[in-house]
Amino acid sequence: MTYRVGVVGGGQLARMMIAPAVELGIDIRVLAEAEGMSAALAATQVGDYRDADTVLAFARDVDVVTFDHEHVPQPVMHALLAAGVAVHPGPAALEFAQDKIRMRTRLAELGVPQPDWAAVSDADALQQFIDDHGGRAVVKTPRGGYDGKGVRVVEHGTEAADWFAALAEDARGGDLLVEELVDFRRELAQQIARSPRGEIATYPVVETVQRDGVCAEVVAPAPGAGARLTDVAAAMASEIANGLGVTGMLAVELFETTDDRLLVNELAMRPHNSGHWTQDGSLTSQFEQHLRAVLDLPLGLTAPHAPWTVMVNVLGGPAEGGLAERVPGAMSAHPGVKIHLYGKDPRPGRKVGHVNALGEELDDVAYEARAAAAHFD
Amino acid sequence: MTYRVGVVGGGQLARMMIAPAVELGIDIRVLAEAEGMSAALAATQVGDYRDADTVLAFARDVDVVTFDHEHVPQPVMHALLAAGVAVHPGPAALEFAQDKIRMRTRLAELGVPQPDWAAVSDADALQQFIDDHGGRAVVKTPRGGYDGKGVRVVEHGTEAADWFAALAEDARGGDLLVEELVDFRRELAQQIARSPRGEIATYPVVETVQRDGVCAEVVAPAPGAGARLTDVAAAMASEIANGLGVTGMLAVELFETTDDRLLVNELAMRPHNSGHWTQDGSLTSQFEQHLRAVLDLPLGLTAPHAPWTVMVNVLGGPAEGGLAERVPGAMSAHPGVKIHLYGKDPRPGRKVGHVNALGEELDDVAYEARAAAAHFD
Repeated sequence: MTYRVGVVGGGQLARMMIAPAVELGIDIRVLAEAEGMSAALAATQVGDYRDADTVLAFARDVDVVTFDHEHVPQPVMHALLAAGVAVHPGPAALEFAQDKIRMRTRLAELGVPQPDWAAVSDADALQQFIDDHGGRAVVKTPRGGYDGKGVRVVEHGTEAADWFAALAEDARGGDLLVEELVDFRRELAQQIARSPRGEIATYPVVETVQRDGVCAEVVAPAPGAGARLTDVAAAMASEIANGLGVTGMLAVELFETTDDRLLVNELAMRPHNSGHWTQDGSLTSQFEQHLRAVLDLPLGLTAPHAPWTVMVNVLGGPAEGGLAERVPGAMSAHPGVKIHLYGKDPRPGRKVGHVNALGEELDDVAYEARAAAAHFD
Repeated sequence: MTYRVGVVGGGQLARMMIAPAVELGIDIRVLAEAEGMSAALAATQVGDYRDADTVLAFARDVDVVTFDHEHVPQPVMHALLAAGVAVHPGPAALEFAQDKIRMRTRLAELGVPQPDWAAVSDADALQQFIDDHGGRAVVKTPRGGYDGKGVRVVEHGTEAADWFAALAEDARGGDLLVEELVDFRRELAQQIARSPRGEIATYPVVETVQRDGVCAEVVAPAPGAGARLTDVAAAMASEIANGLGVTGMLAVELFETTDDRLLVNELAMRPHNSGHWTQDGSLTSQFEQHLRAVLDLPLGLTAPHAPWTVMVNVLGGPAEGGLAERVPGAMSAHPGVKIHLYGKDPRPGRKVGHVNALGEELDDVAYEARAAAAHFD
């Protein structure tokens, strides 16, 4: 007997599950969207994850199906369940990550603190919300957005006309999500793993720095996070993981408001960029933890190796030449920094890798990570 | 451009290069001896490493060839060099690992401390050495031994008659190696990496515990190793790596004698069992370091994550059922222990995995590692 995990999607999150799978003796297989994807080494099939037959064929030889992304359609997931395949996270949980209005509704039912929000079906309703919230608001397409896509700050109800029009043509219909523009001090993220039997493991809450709507940098733990903040963030994530029935890794993106509240911004039901620091900074990485959780294996300790770990993304890559050419310079100048490259071609704004640095002094650690990442610009 | 490493041999050492290769964006390819080997995930070819054409074909698409073991014949390695392929370690260095008499001769030239030894061609010469060394000695076949194979403690010159006979039929001929039986307090090992440009990185010297000639347990660093012992071990390894022209990882197995000398026991020119603790206990694992060294990339820092790391081998595996069935119990009882399984079927005495534990108190760490490993017996 060997544990066998099937990952739908061949991006870098699937790629980064390979290392812990190999070490734990887990047979990992990937259903990739195309040849040459980031997780190609473990790809056993190339096909369309929106096609139930394709995914069912892929699932035949594994113990559990999990995901590199949140885009697998609900009917495909239900077809897997109907065929007796274990799926983690399951469709009932993943639906809350796939539809932000459903997520907001469910969090409201659970009483989890979040920004004021509404589902709006036309420009008038949007304008009303804007008027009620100081003249500005954040509009989001409920489905399909990530890394800042499908998010727009607006001052007029008419500014989302294109999205209302698109929804009107979408067979699934539905509303747009509008949220108050939160007056936040900084953004945080809480990583948590939950297994089907209900075991929970939380990581220290981290600070995330976004640029152009994309995660650029993560500091673990969040500087100045005392016991109260740490406990509240972990408790919120726990409430959400249990309340939504999440299995595997869950990332809870949070606003820390200027009046010291924590509000839920977004959820991701998979290993997440804000948890990449765990690869080198924690006894159990989020990728190992995800594999353990979806296989319903006992979870690992999340103790950090050092007081501080800083992760900096490599976004875009060099304008000329490849990433590999930059490796010697980065390694030579920063022998203590851990470099992770995703095997993707550089392209402006594309996440092509990240670096982790860890140590005793935050300033030094942050400098090392930023300087090492800068070698790849 | 992508860095491409070809590993000859599909055992667990090749397997454990996969994780750091994937993270660093290195394309790793394995020439495996058979289907379903430990490193099968990265196997791009199955074939006989003793056949020059097979290895040349494998080498065509990589930047450097390295090894999972030390058994590739010299003519095959020279054929690679003649074809312009980078080979690390190269044949001139690897020869010292392939032939223990050549190793002893070269170490003597370098003035590196080692046990008394001689090359003996018959029972009389062996008896003479035994008589000169207190009535007992260690006889070794110069080629092909590992994990205690080809090693015999003898009291009479006649006890190696079968090996003398085998050598007489070996076209390469040669002598047997005989060494004094060293009165040692314990065995140590020193890991060192050396790159083609001559950069060196040393790990802390570790204590190794052998059972039946096989490495059973490693404590890093070696308990009670002060600055002097640490420096002497590192300096000896450095002298050897430079003197033998080793590239990649080198493991120097040492005797710590009862009169406080360090003597070289064996050499291994590859990642070695005594360095497996670095996977979880050091900023740069020996597998990542080996890849960096053979690609002539700058080496990584070897700083340990914790005061103590203990590695315990899983030898043999359970008599009934597979290893995977034991994983939940081990994980549940020891959530802080890192489990590594090689994808090999259990068989008495076979190395099928190992565990690493790390922490502040040696007794606790050793207990955790031993208890976790015991789940797989």
